[in-house]
This record gives sequence, structure tokens and C-alpha cells, in this order.
Amino acid sequence: MSTQREPWYALSTDTGGLMTKAAVVDNLGHTIYHLSVPTDTTVPPEAVPDWLIRLIQRLMDGAAIPEDRIAGICVGIPGVIDRRTDTIVSCPNLANWEGIRLAALVQDKTGLPAYLEKDANQAALGEWWLGAGQGVDHLVCFTIGAGIGTGIILDGKLYRGSLGGAGEIGHITLTPDGPRCSCGNRGCLEALASAIGIVREARAAMERDPQSRLWALAGGQPQTLTAEMVFAAARERDYTAQEVVHHAVEYLGIGVSNVVNIFNPDVVVIGGGVALAGEQLLAPVRRVVQQRARRLVADHVRVVQGALGEVAGAIGGAYMVFESQNVPLVMACD
Amino acid sequence: MSTQREPWYALSTDTGGLMTKAAVVDNLGHTIYHLSVPTDTTVPPEAVPDWLIRLIQRLMDGAAIPEDRIAGICVGIPGVIDRRTDTIVSCPNLANWEGIRLAALVQDKTGLPAYLEKDANQAALGEWWLGAGQGVDHLVCFTIGAGIGTGIILDGKLYRGSLGGAGEIGHITLTPDGPRCSCGNRGCLEALASAIGIVREARAAMERDPQSRLWALAGGQPQTLTAEMVFAAARERDYTAQEVVHHAVEYLGIGVSNVVNIFNPDVVVIGGGVALAGEQLLAPVRRVVQQRARRLVADHVRVVQGALGEVAGAIGGAYMVFESQNVPLVMACD
Repeated sequence: MSTQREPWYALSTDTGGLMTKAAVVDNLGHTIYHLSVPTDTTVPPEAVPDWLIRLIQRLMDGAAIPEDRIAGICVGIPGVIDRRTDTIVSCPNLANWEGIRLAALVQDKTGLPAYLEKDANQAALGEWWLGAGQGVDHLVCFTIGAGIGTGIILDGKLYRGSLGGAGEIGHITLTPDGPRCSCGNRGCLEALASAIGIVREARAAMERDPQSRLWALAGGQPQTLTAEMVFAAARERDYTAQEVVHHAVEYLGIGVSNVVNIFNPDVVVIGGGVALAGEQLLAPVRRVVQQRARRLVADHVRVVQGALGEVAGAIGGAYMVFESQNVPLVMACD
Repeated sequence: MSTQREPWYALSTDTGGLMTKAAVVDNLGHTIYHLSVPTDTTVPPEAVPDWLIRLIQRLMDGAAIPEDRIAGICVGIPGVIDRRTDTIVSCPNLANWEGIRLAALVQDKTGLPAYLEKDANQAALGEWWLGAGQGVDHLVCFTIGAGIGTGIILDGKLYRGSLGGAGEIGHITLTPDGPRCSCGNRGCLEALASAIGIVREARAAMERDPQSRLWALAGGQPQTLTAEMVFAAARERDYTAQEVVHHAVEYLGIGVSNVVNIFNPDVVVIGGGVALAGEQLLAPVRRVVQQRARRLVADHVRVVQGALGEVAGAIGGAYMVFESQNVPLVMACD
């Protein structure tokens, strides 16, 4: 293999409150190596860069790539970044990371160009580059797990807004007096349709219904209930679970139809753990979009499941590195 | 005045269900001439272009500008345009105009470059060029009259979405079982906070309260009630009117806070007839944004009243002509 033909590589991490996903991706769109490790939320702020650098070292060791072909590093975080200072300003699930200028610290310690990005923006870039929204101009990507993150791609570019705070669609208010959200507001989409919101509603509902299948699935322990169990019980025609799922996907449908009215996107991608429910979630969301969004935009949009699974964010982070470093990109050869 | 120094002119119209505003604007940002005429909604589809051309002729006569310095014409409509065919696809207040390819027809008959634009997009461009949002990168403009139209400017450019259907923020659902909207959906922002929505709520409320000031302001005739009267009665501390205003501006505040979370804009402009209520409307909207939007974006955005009044749309249409024709633009000298 000649030097000219050697691809470029990007190292990318995507840290959530529970797990951190990381990947090495080349500029041909191949994921060379990836891993998933528990996030250590007890690391004190000053040790966070070293914790990440150990992870990055594991990536480099696992991928066995030439160091002189690494274009850079993207660090993904589940929070809000202030682009004026490139500082993490709000990161409730990783409170120790708030206030850190992580990209600069990682760059100083590794000597490689490093970038900081919101996890949901990474996922949107990943699904747009190599996943369910390839080749479209306008895409909105929802990542639904414990919370709901969103990334917006307009005219083929990530939209960040004035300070980097754009794309907080999980925190739009859909019902003014609704349940309290992690952000402090009431009635946010995230409080209504995330895994945490679904489990909260399901626990309350099973307490009212001792016959519900949810009791068996949770082994009699409501505190072990997961959103996956709620979707499973609904598939088994448990009425209580069906009601909870109906409520959550109806609000998700309203959130998506609002996005369709606002952006007239080509594609809305729904990824994250909750999206593994597949058509059980997508079909009602599409129905609500048809009911509530305007004809022209509702008929145009495709609402699809994410294609990259839990690596979407790490792959999108690699895209960010390549784009920022002007590395030529090739679409994946399947 | 030498030929080189002669400015360029644009002719621009902005047709609503009741009135049509039109203006001649030069590329220095001066409105040379403007007029306002009742919209003739009885004109049959085939005669619409001639109706508009008579209006344009009145503009040219009134402004007395040299014909060889006219850069083009922008026609504004209160509806949705499908950019694939440049056709008006949904225009409930001007049903006769639906299906017409108005720009092509006006261009054929006048020999001048002609453009079709949604009225709310025109207004956003006007307020951004010469009004309350000058010089910012990211702006969302709400025009609140009988309905609620919105235009979105991102990175200094009008955002239209994939087919031209973007910016329908008036039709985002804010309360799933809310009042029926003109678009067919329930609980849209427009159904809750437009003049029509406010008057509908106020009429219902005054029927329940024979002591309300609204009866006197409406001369005992609920069907003559206007949104302006409702705001006036609220200023006079009429409790029933205050409740109606509180309800409407709370929902407007939620709509604006959603926009702030989604776009992280520099400025949100609120124009149109209802915005003439000024601080009575703006102060509670700003309070709701502080309550509901995330800290970084809420602290950054300025929520301001439109500065161009009812000519905003016509002025923005002129901007569109100049930009499309690559005419150099100068900011207004005040």
C-alpha cells in the first residue's frame, strides 16, 4: 500500500451518563475499531482529560493505525457547549465535566487537533454521513435514550446557532403544565417521551393496575422497569403498557411534526435505545406527522430509524474531525 | 446626478386577506413610495396577475422612478409555496390564488425579473435588513395578525427548507387538544395567540362575564370585538380581558422559548398588528423564555418588537429582489 493510498483516521468518543462509546474511523467511512466502556462519573474535573486520553490510547492500541495518519480527535459530551470559550456549560449527567475546556486540554496533552461536540450533533452527522440520512440536504436527528438529544443539519452543514446552543429540541415545551424535566422546565418533549419519561409514567400506571404484565416483566420490582420492558408489554397487548406507549409516541409525533413544520426537512432520523422499538414507535409518529404537519412538508419528509446504532455519535465525531481538517471524504463502500 | 450614482429600485407587494401593502425601495434602503389598498379576493385566478400589475403600475407612477433602474418585482403571498414549481399550494385567505405560478406570469407580462415569496419570509428579511434585527446572523421573525407567520434567517440567509415549506412555526402544536386551527390541526400556536385566537377566547369569556369592560369597548356587539380592544381592556384592569391576554401571551412565550431552544438565535422579532401591544406582550414573552428555555440561549437572545410596521414585508421583498439580482446593498442612512 503506497503512502498516498493510506487513509486518514479520526479518533472519536461519545460519553453518556452510563457508557462511553469510542471509535476509530477512516476517511473512507470504515469503522476500524470501536469499544464501549462504563463512564466513570467519579473522576474529578482535573483528571477528566487523562481519563479520556487513556481511552484514546486504548483506541489507538486496538486499531493499530500509524500515528502520522491520525487527523484528530473528537470528544462528545451529553451537554451544552458555549462556543465563545469552547467550554461545557451544562452537563447534568456529567456534572464533573462542567466548566472544562476539554478540547484544548486534550489537544495540549496529545499534540493532535481536538474538537468538542455535543453527542446529539455527533449522532446527526454520523447518520447523515454514513447512516439513515445519507446524501440529503436537510436532516434532523433525534437520539432517544435516557434523555432526548437532537442535531440539525441544514444545507448539508451542522447548524449550531449563535453560541453553539441550538438543537435543544428535547427541551421544547409540548404541554405547559406537564411533568418536570431534568432542565428545570415543565412539559418538555424529553420529560414526555424519553426512556426516563416512559418509565416514570409506566411505574405510576402499574401501581394502579396490579394485573399489568409490567409486574412480571419487572420481576415484581417497579424500580427495575425499563422502557424496553414497557414496549415489550405493549406488544403483548397489556393495556396499561399500551396506554403509556401511546402517550409517549403521540408526544414524540408532535415533536417531530413541529420539526417538520419548522424545517421542512428531507429526513427525520430517530435513533438511540428507545428507537430500537422500530415500527412500534415509527408508525404512530408518522401518523401524527400526517395529522398535524402541513401537507407539503408532511408528504415530503421520510421518518426513519437510525442505521448506525450506538456508534452513530462516534462516527459523526470522526466526520467532524475530517471536515475541520479538510480531509477528503469518501462515502462508505458497502 | 450621474448615471453611476442613480440607485436601483425594487417593486414589492405583500398581499394579505384584507389589505395589500406595496412599496418602492431603493438599494440604499430608502422606501421611496408606499401604498396600501384593500385586497380584492373576488378576482378570478386568471385575472390575478393583471390585478397585481395594475398595483405595480400605481407604484411606478407614484414613485416616478426611471424604468431602466428597476431591478425587479417581489410578490408576497400569505401562503405556502412549492419551490419545485414555484406554485402557491396553500393559501386559505386567498383561495383564488392557489395553483397559480404568479412569478412567471408577472415576469412575462412586465418583462421584469419577478419573484414569489411568503409574506412572513419577506417580513423577516425586512426586519433583518433595515429593522429590528439589523446585522445579526440568526433571527426568527414572528408576524402576528389574523394569523401567525414566521420567517427564519440563519447565517444571514433566509432558510426555506427542502421544498420552500419551512418556517411554519405558527403551526407547531403547543397543546394537543387545543382549539381548531385554520390549517386543520388542533392546538397550533396560531390558534392560541393570533388575533383570531385572542378574539375567539375573548368572545367566549365576555359571554361568561356581563360586567366585563369588553362589552363597552365592543359597543355591546361581541362580533365587533378586536384583539386591540382586548389588550386595551386588559390595560384598564378588566379581569376577564387580563385572563385572555395572559393565556395568549403565555402560549406565545412558549412558542418563542421553543424557537430559542431550537435555533439559539441572536434576535427574535415580533411584528404585525398584535405586536403593537408593545411591552404588554413583550414583557411576559421574555419572562416565559427565561423560565422555559435553557440558560445559555435564553440569556443571549433579544426579544424585540418589529421596527418597520406594516411595510416590513414589502421592504423585505425588495431585499429579495436586490439579492437575487446581485445588486449591491447599502444599509439605511438614518
